[in-house]
Amino acid sequence: MQEKIITLLTDFGLKDPYVAEMKAVMLTRCPGARIIDISHLIEKFDIRMGAFVLASAVSYFPRNTVHVAVVDPGVGTKRCPIIVETNFGYFVGPDNGLLMLAALKDLKCVYVIENSSFTFSKISQTFHGRDIFAPVAAHLAKGCHPSDFGKEIKDFAVPDFAEPYLEENFIKGEILYVDGFGNIITNISSELLQLSDFEDKKVKIKIGGVSTAVKFCYAYGDVSTGKGLAIIGGHDFLEFSVNQGNAAEFFKVKSGDEVCVWF
Amino acid sequence: MQEKIITLLTDFGLKDPYVAEMKAVMLTRCPGARIIDISHLIEKFDIRMGAFVLASAVSYFPRNTVHVAVVDPGVGTKRCPIIVETNFGYFVGPDNGLLMLAALKDLKCVYVIENSSFTFSKISQTFHGRDIFAPVAAHLAKGCHPSDFGKEIKDFAVPDFAEPYLEENFIKGEILYVDGFGNIITNISSELLQLSDFEDKKVKIKIGGVSTAVKFCYAYGDVSTGKGLAIIGGHDFLEFSVNQGNAAEFFKVKSGDEVCVWF
Amino acid sequence: MQEKIITLLTDFGLKDPYVAEMKAVMLTRCPGARIIDISHLIEKFDIRMGAFVLASAVSYFPRNTVHVAVVDPGVGTKRCPIIVETNFGYFVGPDNGLLMLAALKDLKCVYVIENSSFTFSKISQTFHGRDIFAPVAAHLAKGCHPSDFGKEIKDFAVPDFAEPYLEENFIKGEILYVDGFGNIITNISSELLQLSDFEDKKVKIKIGGVSTAVKFCYAYGDVSTGKGLAIIGGHDFLEFSVNQGNAAEFFKVKSGDEVCVWF
Repeated sequence: MQEKIITLLTDFGLKDPYVAEMKAVMLTRCPGARIIDISHLIEKFDIRMGAFVLASAVSYFPRNTVHVAVVDPGVGTKRCPIIVETNFGYFVGPDNGLLMLAALKDLKCVYVIENSSFTFSKISQTFHGRDIFAPVAAHLAKGCHPSDFGKEIKDFAVPDFAEPYLEENFIKGEILYVDGFGNIITNISSELLQLSDFEDKKVKIKIGGVSTAVKFCYAYGDVSTGKGLAIIGGHDFLEFSVNQGNAAEFFKVKSGDEVCVWF
Repeated sequence: MQEKIITLLTDFGLKDPYVAEMKAVMLTRCPGARIIDISHLIEKFDIRMGAFVLASAVSYFPRNTVHVAVVDPGVGTKRCPIIVETNFGYFVGPDNGLLMLAALKDLKCVYVIENSSFTFSKISQTFHGRDIFAPVAAHLAKGCHPSDFGKEIKDFAVPDFAEPYLEENFIKGEILYVDGFGNIITNISSELLQLSDFEDKKVKIKIGGVSTAVKFCYAYGDVSTGKGLAIIGGHDFLEFSVNQGNAAEFFKVKSGDEVCVWF
Repeated sequence: MQEKIITLLTDFGLKDPYVAEMKAVMLTRCPGARIIDISHLIEKFDIRMGAFVLASAVSYFPRNTVHVAVVDPGVGTKRCPIIVETNFGYFVGPDNGLLMLAALKDLKCVYVIENSSFTFSKISQTFHGRDIFAPVAAHLAKGCHPSDFGKEIKDFAVPDFAEPYLEENFIKGEILYVDGFGNIITNISSELLQLSDFEDKKVKIKIGGVSTAVKFCYAYGDVSTGKGLAIIGGHDFLEFSVNQGNAAEFFKVKSGDEVCVWF
């Protein structure tokens, strides 16, 4: 039988033993699992950044991959641990919106994790990654069905950043992530923009309180140095950049700020 | 046959090729090995921190896992390379105490590595991880017995931090690690404290020259903001924290400093 | 059948989803591949450093390993994607010299990648690692022959740093890398130096505009503190060091600077 893949995304960093403990728990329960790290350097508690990195990577994995993500400022509170079943795989993590940017479009069902026979008998207040999410992912990879872990729920958290606001000629979204070059990555997908209408056109945008118009480009070099542009990035989201400059500094914006696009 | 797991902990960092060279050597000799990184970001030559991270992670791995750890300021000197056999697995590394916090409690035998037929023919002065420990771990994972590599020794190094000093109503230990939040992790295990007697009690402690009393808690929030507390951390060691504060700064202490507990 | 190993070296860092996307693409096409990271912390666009780290690690891997390396300032320009076949394995990456320090000595053939049936149908301007190199590596690991991907080429890039200039009693090379201790690693291999003639001898060198003579040593401690020395490093290149000092600061040199050795 083909080994199942389990991916892992956290804000735990790479110095401490936490990630290894999760892998140990998975391999103890599902010795054949292939564990692939997506990232452990998500900024501490930055659900938006975690959601963006997760959503970027998951579409390249084989069907039925189990994705475990832990960016969890509410660990130890009443937020639920959940499994999300989509048309292409499974997501395991906290019900705080982290999973939804990746999962919402192809969502089938959300299940709460409440069957304690699959988790640690003694669950720490601070490390659900090891005590709940890792063993559940291992059992999913071994063939359990999500409904084995708990009942379906309908009132799961859907963060604003997973659902841009759409009108006939207007989209209101937000900034998911500012990368190391100052490029501004929004939560507006190319699908939402119906990109075929846009190529080589200008769009009116409002960002950081500034209204302006930018050209849609295929490459940064399509505008002159220091000029702003709009581009569909490698992860299929609308991005704003300045050719050889820092767009986030130019617009004075950061992750979470609002972005409006007219077309 | 189930693939054996080999774990890897070093202070080599993630930039240089050293970790990959060790993995290459292991996979050449044991192609079916599953290699899991525990951490490569141990502070250079910090045996205490390496011992703490190793001891934290190993209990979650399956039986018969081979743990390789290399934090080795004495590489190239006369300190021996050793294999430690415990009731749950194997440890391979330098005889400088690094392995003992994890291994001492369940220790069966310690063997010196001296059979050159399992190691590199030409051993570098600076990289025993690749030339000795990696090939030995691979052969252990393939089924060799520790006694195949050399004779049993009794005079292996046991560092102070692996053996807190215990009297009837008094324990003297030391600080293993100060984490990124300033929490003080000691080498005093919950077992040593016989924790059932302690819950919700105050203990008298002396740390950083300061004598005080702190409350035993289950969660940081069990005391008011800025107050100190004692807690059994996720890795089963006694920790001292300040709720929403930095305990290490408060007590002006660092890794290696003495901790006394009366009860 | 034994699983093939694919190694991965990039300058992508560990925060973003890029490395995971490459692994996902590989595992989708070659589910049995064993993927081993060499390093993802190569300095951005530093082809010399990437070449050095790659060349250091590859000799320890089993025969027929597929090595993928992406340090690619020219991505999106006309530089070709290539496969290099050597006597011990395969290299996949950009034709910018990155692969040649590792591959040149045992080179059999270089092939350009032009068969689009093995790559992504839509290739991004900025991420050939995911869209070209990862799928090609997966198909090589599954048993394709390099000639399945494109025709042989003879005019591939060979960087200066892969070919030190050699006369009867003189070698002109350059600095590949300055490590964290200030040790100067050159591109001059021990083979080129015919080291048997050198042991315990002094060599005349010119480095950073300074002409001097240094002693060949086996260990840093073979000269007194603060003294310079020459040594064959763990990766078989000539290195210059200062015992307990910083050689790069002493000679005021950096990666890429010229080094001359007379003997």
